[in-house]
Amino acid sequence: MAGNKAVVYQGPGKVSVETIPYPTLELQDGPGVNPANVGRKVPHGVILKVVSTNICGSDQHMVRGRTTAPVGLALGHEITGEVIEVGPDVEFIKVGDLCSVPFNISCGRCRNCKEGKTGICLNVNPDRPGSAYGYVDMGGWVGGQSEFALVPYADWNLLKFPDKDQAMAKILDLTMLSDIFPTGFHGAFTAGTKPGSTVYIAGAGPVGLAAATSAQLLGAAVVIVGDLNAERLAQARSFGCETVDVSKGDPREQVEQILGVPEVDCAVDAVGFEARGHGAGAAHEAPATVLNSLMELTAAGGALGIPGLYVTGDPGAVDAAAKVGSLSISLGTGWAKSLSFTTGQCPVMRYHRGLMQAILHDKVQIGKNVNATVIPLAEAPRGYSEFDQGASKKYVLDPHGLLS
Amino acid sequence: MAGNKAVVYQGPGKVSVETIPYPTLELQDGPGVNPANVGRKVPHGVILKVVSTNICGSDQHMVRGRTTAPVGLALGHEITGEVIEVGPDVEFIKVGDLCSVPFNISCGRCRNCKEGKTGICLNVNPDRPGSAYGYVDMGGWVGGQSEFALVPYADWNLLKFPDKDQAMAKILDLTMLSDIFPTGFHGAFTAGTKPGSTVYIAGAGPVGLAAATSAQLLGAAVVIVGDLNAERLAQARSFGCETVDVSKGDPREQVEQILGVPEVDCAVDAVGFEARGHGAGAAHEAPATVLNSLMELTAAGGALGIPGLYVTGDPGAVDAAAKVGSLSISLGTGWAKSLSFTTGQCPVMRYHRGLMQAILHDKVQIGKNVNATVIPLAEAPRGYSEFDQGASKKYVLDPHGLLS
Amino acid sequence: MAGNKAVVYQGPGKVSVETIPYPTLELQDGPGVNPANVGRKVPHGVILKVVSTNICGSDQHMVRGRTTAPVGLALGHEITGEVIEVGPDVEFIKVGDLCSVPFNISCGRCRNCKEGKTGICLNVNPDRPGSAYGYVDMGGWVGGQSEFALVPYADWNLLKFPDKDQAMAKILDLTMLSDIFPTGFHGAFTAGTKPGSTVYIAGAGPVGLAAATSAQLLGAAVVIVGDLNAERLAQARSFGCETVDVSKGDPREQVEQILGVPEVDCAVDAVGFEARGHGAGAAHEAPATVLNSLMELTAAGGALGIPGLYVTGDPGAVDAAAKVGSLSISLGTGWAKSLSFTTGQCPVMRYHRGLMQAILHDKVQIGKNVNATVIPLAEAPRGYSEFDQGASKKYVLDPHGLLS
Amino acid sequence: MAGNKAVVYQGPGKVSVETIPYPTLELQDGPGVNPANVGRKVPHGVILKVVSTNICGSDQHMVRGRTTAPVGLALGHEITGEVIEVGPDVEFIKVGDLCSVPFNISCGRCRNCKEGKTGICLNVNPDRPGSAYGYVDMGGWVGGQSEFALVPYADWNLLKFPDKDQAMAKILDLTMLSDIFPTGFHGAFTAGTKPGSTVYIAGAGPVGLAAATSAQLLGAAVVIVGDLNAERLAQARSFGCETVDVSKGDPREQVEQILGVPEVDCAVDAVGFEARGHGAGAAHEAPATVLNSLMELTAAGGALGIPGLYVTGDPGAVDAAAKVGSLSISLGTGWAKSLSFTTGQCPVMRYHRGLMQAILHDKVQIGKNVNATVIPLAEAPRGYSEFDQGASKKYVLDPHGLLS
Repeated sequence: MAGNKAVVYQGPGKVSVETIPYPTLELQDGPGVNPANVGRKVPHGVILKVVSTNICGSDQHMVRGRTTAPVGLALGHEITGEVIEVGPDVEFIKVGDLCSVPFNISCGRCRNCKEGKTGICLNVNPDRPGSAYGYVDMGGWVGGQSEFALVPYADWNLLKFPDKDQAMAKILDLTMLSDIFPTGFHGAFTAGTKPGSTVYIAGAGPVGLAAATSAQLLGAAVVIVGDLNAERLAQARSFGCETVDVSKGDPREQVEQILGVPEVDCAVDAVGFEARGHGAGAAHEAPATVLNSLMELTAAGGALGIPGLYVTGDPGAVDAAAKVGSLSISLGTGWAKSLSFTTGQCPVMRYHRGLMQAILHDKVQIGKNVNATVIPLAEAPRGYSEFDQGASKKYVLDPHGLLS
Repeated sequence: MAGNKAVVYQGPGKVSVETIPYPTLELQDGPGVNPANVGRKVPHGVILKVVSTNICGSDQHMVRGRTTAPVGLALGHEITGEVIEVGPDVEFIKVGDLCSVPFNISCGRCRNCKEGKTGICLNVNPDRPGSAYGYVDMGGWVGGQSEFALVPYADWNLLKFPDKDQAMAKILDLTMLSDIFPTGFHGAFTAGTKPGSTVYIAGAGPVGLAAATSAQLLGAAVVIVGDLNAERLAQARSFGCETVDVSKGDPREQVEQILGVPEVDCAVDAVGFEARGHGAGAAHEAPATVLNSLMELTAAGGALGIPGLYVTGDPGAVDAAAKVGSLSISLGTGWAKSLSFTTGQCPVMRYHRGLMQAILHDKVQIGKNVNATVIPLAEAPRGYSEFDQGASKKYVLDPHGLLS
Repeated sequence: MAGNKAVVYQGPGKVSVETIPYPTLELQDGPGVNPANVGRKVPHGVILKVVSTNICGSDQHMVRGRTTAPVGLALGHEITGEVIEVGPDVEFIKVGDLCSVPFNISCGRCRNCKEGKTGICLNVNPDRPGSAYGYVDMGGWVGGQSEFALVPYADWNLLKFPDKDQAMAKILDLTMLSDIFPTGFHGAFTAGTKPGSTVYIAGAGPVGLAAATSAQLLGAAVVIVGDLNAERLAQARSFGCETVDVSKGDPREQVEQILGVPEVDCAVDAVGFEARGHGAGAAHEAPATVLNSLMELTAAGGALGIPGLYVTGDPGAVDAAAKVGSLSISLGTGWAKSLSFTTGQCPVMRYHRGLMQAILHDKVQIGKNVNATVIPLAEAPRGYSEFDQGASKKYVLDPHGLLS
Repeated sequence: MAGNKAVVYQGPGKVSVETIPYPTLELQDGPGVNPANVGRKVPHGVILKVVSTNICGSDQHMVRGRTTAPVGLALGHEITGEVIEVGPDVEFIKVGDLCSVPFNISCGRCRNCKEGKTGICLNVNPDRPGSAYGYVDMGGWVGGQSEFALVPYADWNLLKFPDKDQAMAKILDLTMLSDIFPTGFHGAFTAGTKPGSTVYIAGAGPVGLAAATSAQLLGAAVVIVGDLNAERLAQARSFGCETVDVSKGDPREQVEQILGVPEVDCAVDAVGFEARGHGAGAAHEAPATVLNSLMELTAAGGALGIPGLYVTGDPGAVDAAAKVGSLSISLGTGWAKSLSFTTGQCPVMRYHRGLMQAILHDKVQIGKNVNATVIPLAEAPRGYSEFDQGASKKYVLDPHGLLS
């Protein structure tokens, strides 16, 4: 068994492609692995040959040095692959199956999993509920921006595509099922999007574009995407969204020009804690800007879906409060309007099968909408860098050259 | 003010256009008016100049003589119009407003209305919960296939279009908001249609086509429509539905050819009590056929939306049981699969605003999908006749020549 | 390892206690075992020492000869026990854990299980979705009215009690978590019971009494239980229910005497296909009586929860239609009132943890309410017989003498 | 027609009983009446003889001078009374009816009312969605701590008690239906309380006690109430709640002593923006304390119901941020746990009928639980003062001496 090339965090601003150990059905010690998970047996797991694996905005939080991620951490939690080995406890998934891997690892055996809350599984991360591959403080499951990857609790976690040839023909869409399509959908759905809704999405990065796509799929009458990156706004317009350039000031005025009223039914925060100000302040970080702005924008009785990540500690934050995760939120604005709020990781399994069906039956073109862009695994560092600079692309790594 | 031309039931198989009294803000005696409603004051009502008013399949039940509808009954419950007079208690609706009228009349003041259950309002029909314009045993509110119509509780019932010019440009879509679009949507929604669902719709009449349109709007992966009328099936295919010709036998086989499996996630009964058999029996009425067939077709855990009308008495039924509304239902089939069932009139107000928004923002083309076909009010008898013979058209009457 | 005493079906009207094989982590051939399940490996299973195991009304369907259950079938699906052996794939359940076993067996790995629909698991019964221990046509998992029992997919299925001593002190309540308490709760819940609801429960057998208890726990204002067995009605009154004696005629009149109106908000069918008539007809089977009566009794806009079993075939039925599971249902009555219906096995896992908490914190006394009555395993035949004759008792078998 | 004695705000810390104009079916100018509402016709209104009217904690916000309430404002939004005059548009409510008045005024004709969102009615307050009687910035509807009161849109707003004698016998319970019982229920319900839940309620004032009562009615296994007022905590214990004294430090430790784990399933903020610190800081206002504490206390996957009032401006706040309604919230804590949040006024009509039924059928004793204490209208100033000092009483004013 040869090695396993993988994208590895090398300190702030730097990733490289290195050879890490080939995965086994036991969790080995390594950078970022929780001591309580070292040596954990994974007879319920499978080894995947990674067919596609995407760079995510939340990887960037680590690479920018905004977290305590250790040097040497193998990155990547958006994984699609072919099963090449199954553990002895795996009963229904078979060698040869082509599958999507939900980014949130879950056991399928705890109270939360039984309730479908797979984003806060109680059994995979010794520190707290919830886990993910290749992520700081998430238990130490090895990242999947690599040639081969271990997926535990495979019968539970994996979504098998019904036909491999059909799936490979749509792989740039299906690769988005591991994270951003369900995550964007979760935002749009928990914001209450229904047929006829008007929806505002803060952020035109891949999750924001996925939320916009999802809002369309849910029947929204108008989907408006706000950002300050002109290229990303153009991408949003390419599939029928309206856009708001927040660098030009308060979104309410621009929304009013589009809708005739300065408010929407539903709002999605696809930005999170690294938010920047609006208007002249757009260059500066202002972590509560998006949430406060969305409360202003949302009509009374509406809801905010908040898939954008907020953290409990942020050493690189702009002020002391934000360093400990405290944000200055105008809660009274939301209270006066009876708004409701849904936060947290998307429980991918709640949505991925339906979204797969929508892809396979040509109801949605998520790959095109987020501008899926294939690059070799070896060029991951370039992908990270361009994405960090605001390229309106969703980089899909191709570890085995299967996507060309 | 002169008379009021209206479509009037003249006995089995026959309607004519007659002059009936111009509406006033008091319910007058007349054919089919419940004695307890005669003389009822309607200060909360408005008089509409009817802009469009559609012939509905449920009107046909009466015209075919399958009910106890009295000769002389003015027909029509699918009404869109311009307000030309407002009662003294009307506060927000104004003269000149162009509005859609939900077919189910409701008071906005009873327990059921407060819970959004406007299809079973307790205050408008002395006989039982629920009411409609121009319909037998529904209280006696005069039908609206006419030049002018009275709408009670107008502030509550009416949906005002935000812009009259914009609305007139889409009037063949908006006219479907009074009944069949929400009714079809109710079927698809209560059947559990979500992004990625596979959906089977029994019946390719206007309600079935509206249910199919709604299933698409709700993000269904595949929408299959079953009927035995080739022209109607062609209409379903015209906007992207798959079809099943039930005259060719058991729908399960045909569904399997389409989906690879002989079952769907969600099913809608858009036929009701005048159902006919499948296969060789397709020519004969078999009132439980659709429900039994849908239980066979629906996967375990699925749901049936049943907007198709079932009645408590049907003098024209094929057998004694059906005459008193008893159907021979294989309930065990549904029970073994843990199916759920939603019956009854669609509460139009729950859906019409969102569907209006979807129309106005070009997300859905319901008029085209149901083949909206404008004819003058005077030609209503032809419309009834052609529709009864299975024309795949949704007839829209044009009492004032405003639709050409 | 010695044998395993168990209750075994011996033909219509007869059960006996026999020695059957001690369970192993592989499904062995035997009476009623589906050939496709013979030899199935169960490394994810555990062996339980059965602490309590109840006789269920649905067992009676088999024992009355109303099904195709084979002679020799070991009965029993209401199992509570202590883990004495764990399979190699079991990770979280440990030897010594005292656990409740949901009667519906589920894999925790299929689409339906992931959606919480454990009553229709796709992987445990080769014939169709859904399974149960010791039941005809359910795959062949051996019944648990025995000393020892095999539970597959133990990490997924089992509900561990937090403290064994505390649990043993409340074992006559906790033993109802395997079936009737959740099943009754499912009926009350899917009937829409909320604080302040008026609820009618058809049937005062153990499931009906559990539904009544559940309706109280859900905050119902009035719970009315209907039956024709005076002893069972007295049991319902013992914990605060109102009662209707259906042998005295139409329940509507009696309900009106209790509530002032002849209808309720919510209705539960805890009888199923062996229903009898009302009034003078109460002695005769009339399989659609309950459903038709509940549609009459339920107010417009209400819902029916139908945990009572309906079957697809019933060789012992009163007429040809019922023999193939066809019931003559007045669907129009329900349709006119916009009723909805939920059928099927209760997915026990959706409710058992919350109900356990309610028991452990003294919020509910389900054992007392259903008149839990402990008898030795050896006396199971007497329990079956007395229960069949209408004793208002829930028989709890005590295979190891732990309950005295 | 004589005058109308009423409780009037006289400046910070002071109320008095004065004679204000007898109500008419037109909104007159006066202290706090929005100019756009002056002269508004109320033909849909009724005049009530006030039978009971309660002092509310939110009245105290005004009386403490924490708002911009004008001197001369007639206070009171918790009104129960007998109809003595009906406007010409009132159709179903009759003179003599004894009714509960939801504190939030709503029209029953706007989009939000049609969706049941009566706390944010669009037509009653010219400034923004939502209104209430006798409250600053809520449109100017005259307060009802008075002998007589005007209720607009009476057919829509009023809940008629079915029997006057029965109602008078339970009037100290029924008087809580106008606000705190539904408000507390809304908190418990939107926090996700279900049978078996563990629930923490922050605040043992009347709304907190009503939330605790509601949590019990919803079937909670354990209800824990936190406060720093020993008398109020004793009141909570009087009906079976556990308690946490937040003056003794972090609630997590005390919760762990009660439950064995330091977290609950559901949490309710019944305190709002005038929150104080925990432990040694309990004497000082710390407006985000409750929310941050509840995020710590709530288990992953849980929900927070937030009926406690948060404002957009608070001139009397402890710091500059709080003066403009900005709170320093540790959102990351909630996000990591996938918590959801529901804010805003309770839409009373969604719950009051069911809660009335629970009261009338002896399922709940809300009056006793909140320590309903009747005082004459003339002694309202004493009631305000004692309540402000932390008396564990819910003061019920008795304008006509009908409650003794």
